[in-house]
Amino acid sequence: MTPQDSLWLHHQINLFNAEYAAALDEKRYADWPDFFVPDGRYLVQARENFDRGLPLALMRLESQGMMRDRVHGVTQTIYHGPYYMRHVVSPACGLALEADGQTLRAQANYAVFRTKPGSVSEVFNVGRYIDTFVQTDVGWRLRERRCVYDSEMILNSLIYPI
Amino acid sequence: MTPQDSLWLHHQINLFNAEYAAALDEKRYADWPDFFVPDGRYLVQARENFDRGLPLALMRLESQGMMRDRVHGVTQTIYHGPYYMRHVVSPACGLALEADGQTLRAQANYAVFRTKPGSVSEVFNVGRYIDTFVQTDVGWRLRERRCVYDSEMILNSLIYPI
Amino acid sequence: MTPQDSLWLHHQINLFNAEYAAALDEKRYADWPDFFVPDGRYLVQARENFDRGLPLALMRLESQGMMRDRVHGVTQTIYHGPYYMRHVVSPACGLALEADGQTLRAQANYAVFRTKPGSVSEVFNVGRYIDTFVQTDVGWRLRERRCVYDSEMILNSLIYPI
Repeated sequence: MTPQDSLWLHHQINLFNAEYAAALDEKRYADWPDFFVPDGRYLVQARENFDRGLPLALMRLESQGMMRDRVHGVTQTIYHGPYYMRHVVSPACGLALEADGQTLRAQANYAVFRTKPGSVSEVFNVGRYIDTFVQTDVGWRLRERRCVYDSEMILNSLIYPI
Repeated sequence: MTPQDSLWLHHQINLFNAEYAAALDEKRYADWPDFFVPDGRYLVQARENFDRGLPLALMRLESQGMMRDRVHGVTQTIYHGPYYMRHVVSPACGLALEADGQTLRAQANYAVFRTKPGSVSEVFNVGRYIDTFVQTDVGWRLRERRCVYDSEMILNSLIYPI
Repeated sequence: MTPQDSLWLHHQINLFNAEYAAALDEKRYADWPDFFVPDGRYLVQARENFDRGLPLALMRLESQGMMRDRVHGVTQTIYHGPYYMRHVVSPACGLALEADGQTLRAQANYAVFRTKPGSVSEVFNVGRYIDTFVQTDVGWRLRERRCVYDSEMILNSLIYPI
C-alpha cells in the first residue's frame, strides 16, 4: 500500500467507524443495516471462540434483511430494560487493500459504555472490530463486521448491535 | 464536501480534540477558554434534556469571560476532593462545512475517566461533543461546544470542564 | 510544522499507536520490542512521580534486549492470573518535529481495559503516552515511550506492557 493510500484509507475508515458508532449511540437503528452491503454479515463473537476458530457467535446476521429483522425485534418486540450506549473507537489498524483495490481489510478497538436510567455509566463491552469493506457507489460499506469481545460475562444481555 | 476537504477537516478536528483533552487532563485550565472564540458557548447537558429539546444544562457558559471565571472558581475557590481526569475521544464524525467555508459542525464521542487519590480509575462521564467551529487566524476555534452526557448520575459532582 | 507535515505525521502516529495496541491486545508480545529502536526506552510511571520530576517508575526498560527479557518473563516465568487487555487510544496531539526532520515528539491518551476469565471488563489503567519517535528505514519507531498513568492503585499488579 502506498503512503498516499494509507492516508486516504485510514481517514475513510476512521470516519466510517465514527459515523457507525453515532448511528447506534443515537438510536438511529434503522440506519444501521445501511453500513453494510445487501449480503453483508454481522457477527458478535467471544474472543475465546474466535481465537480457537470455533464458530459459535452470540449474534450472526447474514444479510441486511436479517439486520432489519433484528432492528425490528429490538425496537418493537423484545422486552428489555432500556439503556444508552456510547462507543469510543480507536483509529483503525491492519489496513490491507486487495489487488483489485475494491476490498479492504481493517481492524479497530472499541469500548462500549452502557448507562441505565438513573445510574452511573459502566464498561459494557470491549473488543475489536475485524472488518472487510467493499467499495460501492456511496463509499466503503461492510461486507463483514466481526465484533470480537473480551468481555466473557455480558452485563445482563446484549440487546442492541455493538 | 470534497474528499480533500473531508481529509483535512477530519485531521484538524481530531487534532483539536486531542489538544483540548490534553489541556484539561494536564490541569492547564487557564488554556481552556482559548479553545473557544471570545463569544463562544460551553454547555454540559444531560442527554435526556437534549433529546427532548429542553434547555436545562448542568453548566452553561456564554463567553470566554464566563469560562475564565469558572476556571478561577475551580482552581481558587470551590472546595472539592481532588481528582485526575483522562479523556479518550474518538475520531470526529458528522462533519458539515457551511457554504462560506468558515463554519464547521462536527461531533465526537468521549469517555472521561476519573481517578481520586489512592483509588482505582472509574468511568466518570461518557457522551458526545456537539460542536460548531469557526475559522480564525489561528485555526479552528469553538463557537459552541455542547457536551451531551449519557451518565445521568454524575459521580459526586462535576467540577472541571469536560 | 507545515499543515502538510501535520496531516502526514498525525496519520502515521495514529496508525502506529493502533498497531502497537493490537500487538499487545492480541498477545503478540514478541512483536512488541520491534516498535522501538534497539536502544529504545520504555517506562511506566505514576503521574504523581512524573509531575514532580521524580525518577521512580513501575517499569523501566532501557533497550530492546531488556524488553525481550521482560516478554520472556511475562510469557514463560511469572506466575499470574491470566487477563485480556484492550487498549483504546485517542488520536495523538503535541506533535513536534525536530529541525533534522528525524525526531518527532508526540502524546496520546489511552485507556486500557482488563478482562479476567469469566468476569466483566474493568478500567485497568488510564493515562498518556509521552513519546519520542525516530525515523528509520521501516518508518517511525520509538526511542522512548513513557506511559504516565493516573491510576494510583494498579488493580492487582501490572504484568503486561501497557
